[in-house]
Amino acid sequence: MNKAILVFQTDFTYKEGAVSSMYGVVKSVDRDLEIFDSTHEIPNYDIYSASFRLFQPLKFWPKGTVFVSVVDPGVGTFRKASIAYTENGYYIVTPDNGTLTHVDKIYGIKKIVEIDTNKHRLTGFGTETISVFHGRDIFAYCGAKLASGQVKFEEFGQEYDVKDIVRFDIIEPEIKGNLIIGTAEIIDPNFGNLWTNIPISNLSDVLEKKVLVKIYDENHKVVFEEYIKVHKTFGDVLKGEITIYQNEYGNIAIAINQGSFIKKYQVPYGANIKIEILK
Amino acid sequence: MNKAILVFQTDFTYKEGAVSSMYGVVKSVDRDLEIFDSTHEIPNYDIYSASFRLFQPLKFWPKGTVFVSVVDPGVGTFRKASIAYTENGYYIVTPDNGTLTHVDKIYGIKKIVEIDTNKHRLTGFGTETISVFHGRDIFAYCGAKLASGQVKFEEFGQEYDVKDIVRFDIIEPEIKGNLIIGTAEIIDPNFGNLWTNIPISNLSDVLEKKVLVKIYDENHKVVFEEYIKVHKTFGDVLKGEITIYQNEYGNIAIAINQGSFIKKYQVPYGANIKIEILK
Amino acid sequence: MNKAILVFQTDFTYKEGAVSSMYGVVKSVDRDLEIFDSTHEIPNYDIYSASFRLFQPLKFWPKGTVFVSVVDPGVGTFRKASIAYTENGYYIVTPDNGTLTHVDKIYGIKKIVEIDTNKHRLTGFGTETISVFHGRDIFAYCGAKLASGQVKFEEFGQEYDVKDIVRFDIIEPEIKGNLIIGTAEIIDPNFGNLWTNIPISNLSDVLEKKVLVKIYDENHKVVFEEYIKVHKTFGDVLKGEITIYQNEYGNIAIAINQGSFIKKYQVPYGANIKIEILK
Repeated sequence: MNKAILVFQTDFTYKEGAVSSMYGVVKSVDRDLEIFDSTHEIPNYDIYSASFRLFQPLKFWPKGTVFVSVVDPGVGTFRKASIAYTENGYYIVTPDNGTLTHVDKIYGIKKIVEIDTNKHRLTGFGTETISVFHGRDIFAYCGAKLASGQVKFEEFGQEYDVKDIVRFDIIEPEIKGNLIIGTAEIIDPNFGNLWTNIPISNLSDVLEKKVLVKIYDENHKVVFEEYIKVHKTFGDVLKGEITIYQNEYGNIAIAINQGSFIKKYQVPYGANIKIEILK
Repeated sequence: MNKAILVFQTDFTYKEGAVSSMYGVVKSVDRDLEIFDSTHEIPNYDIYSASFRLFQPLKFWPKGTVFVSVVDPGVGTFRKASIAYTENGYYIVTPDNGTLTHVDKIYGIKKIVEIDTNKHRLTGFGTETISVFHGRDIFAYCGAKLASGQVKFEEFGQEYDVKDIVRFDIIEPEIKGNLIIGTAEIIDPNFGNLWTNIPISNLSDVLEKKVLVKIYDENHKVVFEEYIKVHKTFGDVLKGEITIYQNEYGNIAIAINQGSFIKKYQVPYGANIKIEILK
Repeated sequence: MNKAILVFQTDFTYKEGAVSSMYGVVKSVDRDLEIFDSTHEIPNYDIYSASFRLFQPLKFWPKGTVFVSVVDPGVGTFRKASIAYTENGYYIVTPDNGTLTHVDKIYGIKKIVEIDTNKHRLTGFGTETISVFHGRDIFAYCGAKLASGQVKFEEFGQEYDVKDIVRFDIIEPEIKGNLIIGTAEIIDPNFGNLWTNIPISNLSDVLEKKVLVKIYDENHKVVFEEYIKVHKTFGDVLKGEITIYQNEYGNIAIAINQGSFIKKYQVPYGANIKIEILK
């Protein structure tokens, strides 16, 4: 009987009226829908970060939740407006521009449809000829129609092959003896930590020991190189000390306790930023 | 049976407890009320921006929605605390200090009452003698009473003439042959675009051509002058290129694709900032 | 029949997926729960600010509201994860690290239990061995269980003596003839005002007169010393003028009208920042 929850992420911020316009559209479609902000502070146009932030909280929401992601530098050009259904039971309404990469890699996408935007688009508000705000006119609108049950997944348009989803290439974690290779996957912009895509279990034999960490920029140049101690919990780390720790979803991360690693070292992050850890 | 939705905008930010105090008051008036943030990041004391931001998302919300706007540099002095009812069916609870300008101009205000704050004010929380936070003690409180149906529009106080509403003077778009004159109305502070109050239809004869754009500051000095191409969609614009495009509600706007026009050119905006476009 | 509202405050910001993960957990515990942001912009690791921000809006929310506070620099070390029940009828789920200071001082805490985190912790999401995000795995989870009525206050763990709650020492306001001594308690980071813990009633005999204000840093050095006029309302203050006024909960505060006192003078604030006012 409960309708699906809508969870939004964008790069719009709350500084102006864009989020409010989208949420107004949702409540105009169906007054009973519940809406949550996931984040509206994705760095502008940063599809890669959108992909990671979509994955990060996803599984903690109830099955059936409808995520709407609008980081859409290609708005008004050719890129599919799509709805994905994941193997673990969530819906994602998003431009198919790379945003689905992490969710597809980690949970798998079962089915995807391209929204027929001639049929499924906000009408009656005088925005029919406007091409710059699909967040309001297509994504929020279709998300609401789906969450409310007014339009079913299959009815939004043509299904297409999940193999055709636009994806980033992500460096897979790789073990070569004492050397572990992975990606400097993302940052925590608030606490200033760097997260990798390497499970912490790879360091269980060197707890309380130091390992050599190297980070390479996209031109394969070493931009960070330091010995860092692997701590079991943050409680063992001195204030201001650099540390390797287990982040909130079980991977290797680097922090300065009560400081900011990313501010101090200004290292890059992303799909093509390689990190090497030598035990 | 549904009670009205409450939508808030302020210049309070979420950095401290002011928004939480207001929303607590709402839920204490009526536990069933739904509350949405429109924005709490109006620039401090900027009534003009409040007026624009109130208009921007308004029509996308369901009819009957109660907007509460608290940008109130005159709190505790003489300015009316009012509730407006718009021609298109929305309520707005706000200090009558200019905030109603855009909504009145674009949709029209049908009726307005001055809240009798001796009768309609939060009591029982020890804030009766406090004059600095009408957002909590009057506007949120009365918004909640109205949205819940506990007090009807007419019961809040004396109706007054809509002609007496405080308004900004806004330069009307004007066509003089090949010259179009209007206002540099507002910015998108996130994506860095400048929006005008001139409908894009005025440029339909010069698509894919360049026009001369001049912006004047409030002292009538030219602060920007450049030829800019009119693009049909963003998709045709190169990264870093300056462009004229149709913004989200159909007007002429200026952007740098994936850059920030307002950061680069530092142009002013507002009711008295004139823009001229020569075809 | 209504379930309790959940109100969150953290130092996580909305920049990444942490808040979304917590709220997802809440809705997974009980789909019917209502969640509000109080603030997610407590300065990083600042337990003292957390304590003040918890107090500030609390009493405006309906009795029975469950507050969840996660400013937790000691996560993963020894500090109790607790649930307090206040004398005025609210629940607070928080690390017992000083966050309860103001609420205890002002409203009183009636009972407190230490959460048995072996029994009451998120399971089934693969986060059982993760020690860095108790906001998600313990505080949001237990807050939701409490608000939904699935687990009762007493069932979360061992009750302990309220005298054992971790507290800051706060300088009490003190009157010595014409000299009033108190704390530069907190700032309004948005409008740039400084708030003290001294009731404004102490200045009722010097309205419209100037008083001498001195602020001492934690090393007892005078960092601010100026004569400031006590204004009855903000309406009497010129733009740019420094003023003493009555803040939103009845105490002495210092502002520059439409300016920022804290930016201009860069004064510190906190439990051990003394302010003296000489009439």
